[in-house]
Amino acid sequence: MPTFVKENRLVDWIQNITGTDAEGVRHGIGDDAAVLCPIADGLVVTTDLIADGSHFDSANASARQIGRKAMAVNLSDIAAMAARPIAAFVSLLLPRSVDQNYAEELMASAVSMGREFHCPVAGGDTNSWDGKLAINVLIIGQISSRGPLLRSTAKPNDWLLVTGALGGSLAGRHFEFTPRICEAMLLQDRYHLGAGMDLSDGLAMDLRRLCSQSGCGAEIELDALPISAAARQLSSSQPERIRRALADGEDFELLLAVEQDEAQAILRDQPLDVPITKVGRCIAGTEIWQISEGKRTPMPNMGYEHGGSGKSKE
Amino acid sequence: MPTFVKENRLVDWIQNITGTDAEGVRHGIGDDAAVLCPIADGLVVTTDLIADGSHFDSANASARQIGRKAMAVNLSDIAAMAARPIAAFVSLLLPRSVDQNYAEELMASAVSMGREFHCPVAGGDTNSWDGKLAINVLIIGQISSRGPLLRSTAKPNDWLLVTGALGGSLAGRHFEFTPRICEAMLLQDRYHLGAGMDLSDGLAMDLRRLCSQSGCGAEIELDALPISAAARQLSSSQPERIRRALADGEDFELLLAVEQDEAQAILRDQPLDVPITKVGRCIAGTEIWQISEGKRTPMPNMGYEHGGSGKSKE
Repeated sequence: MPTFVKENRLVDWIQNITGTDAEGVRHGIGDDAAVLCPIADGLVVTTDLIADGSHFDSANASARQIGRKAMAVNLSDIAAMAARPIAAFVSLLLPRSVDQNYAEELMASAVSMGREFHCPVAGGDTNSWDGKLAINVLIIGQISSRGPLLRSTAKPNDWLLVTGALGGSLAGRHFEFTPRICEAMLLQDRYHLGAGMDLSDGLAMDLRRLCSQSGCGAEIELDALPISAAARQLSSSQPERIRRALADGEDFELLLAVEQDEAQAILRDQPLDVPITKVGRCIAGTEIWQISEGKRTPMPNMGYEHGGSGKSKE
Repeated sequence: MPTFVKENRLVDWIQNITGTDAEGVRHGIGDDAAVLCPIADGLVVTTDLIADGSHFDSANASARQIGRKAMAVNLSDIAAMAARPIAAFVSLLLPRSVDQNYAEELMASAVSMGREFHCPVAGGDTNSWDGKLAINVLIIGQISSRGPLLRSTAKPNDWLLVTGALGGSLAGRHFEFTPRICEAMLLQDRYHLGAGMDLSDGLAMDLRRLCSQSGCGAEIELDALPISAAARQLSSSQPERIRRALADGEDFELLLAVEQDEAQAILRDQPLDVPITKVGRCIAGTEIWQISEGKRTPMPNMGYEHGGSGKSKE
């Protein structure tokens, strides 16, 4: 039973590197379920699965990159709720061709990414099969005392802010991005945020989701978009740069809707290590508009499709 | 973008059938993460992934059977902790060949299985890919006021009890079993249970895990094993029946270690709709023995390997 033994070995190894000294975890790996400590203000729970051929290409990405990304995209969703991560759960589907070293490198990288944000791996499920590599991560987080940052609470006239710069992530940043956990917690603590989310499928598509949940529309000022260095390098024209900032996806920056006075304070203070930029505002109605050189036109449908694979976060 | 649109449609449909009226769920599907209510006594979290070719064969199993099983195996792990399920999270990897009806039938069956135990689907992640079908379910549960039922707290001289009957599950029961949620909660409430787990890989292998976690050994009385009708039908001899009860796996019954006086009370009361049977006892040391016709021999290594696939629950 070589595969099975190998997997028990992998689980033993995972149990060793994850440890059991985390604050919120009473019993980690080793029982039928993990046991977490009581959670006073309520929980957020997010899960995201990444699969070979859809979210990465195992022929061109290292085990380290894949493991890191699997954890980081989920941390980004916890950041999107302005919550503090408590524990992660990692389910692996490993191709039979994968050896112990590869699996360990992948898990070590996921564990290490979690640890950066005090988020231990407290459980999971490890499977070999004759299919391709896929990793499901679920993270449980603790709501801030200010409550969770929701998508559904933006109001007309809120200003729309984004952290960092957008576009061109597939040139490399999608493997190396920093989940905006600390940034979201700091902003939620110091300011009154109206609504927010993380940008995973591009501002154009994600803004539509925020507006749809909040029952409002929006105007985006194309000339104000913060365009990443990668998007600049990849593009030969300004319209192409703007299209990338709107639609490349996998930015994993924060999109926030904030009342005007508070937004002005945030923009003036610039309290983060990354810039915060105003990109537009919420409006009454349900339309999403783009403004360029003073001209307002409907924002076309566009957004990232994860390598052609359909992917829909619930 | 036909696949993507289809998946957004599937997510909408899932959001519709899951509803948001569950007791422990403040915000379900629709944001970056689900928001759960505060949990007073602590949480248990379990996750189990089932994959085509390993835990089921999609050519011979219906979408309904697969969706039910994905949820039920996780409910069984919550039962193993004597906890009450609060919310489930379902990640799907759907082959591109699968149509909307199939996906809806699968999800409806998972949702319906959860609902039987007041466990709403509060989130997940839906992906199409050019691989095979896999479903990851994670369930969060609330610990009983008596605390979680652990694997690590069995003591020498505890009696070993099992619910129901063992063996032959692959003849059909592995798709139709009832997770022992209610049974575990009732037993944990009325009696002092020492340790426990659910039987997923066969008594022989799972008992080894319980003993390993508890730092004890055990003796199993082979002639006392409750053998299922399916295992009887599938076998031509008594040794073959016993082997099935020990090693077929996927029984999803409870294995309990209980102090002698309390175990005698449980056996006398028989408080469940299914029988509870004494199958042996814990002993000092680390050896696992089997006793047959008064003769004690080491229990051989055996257990279910999920269709030849390695699978290790963390």
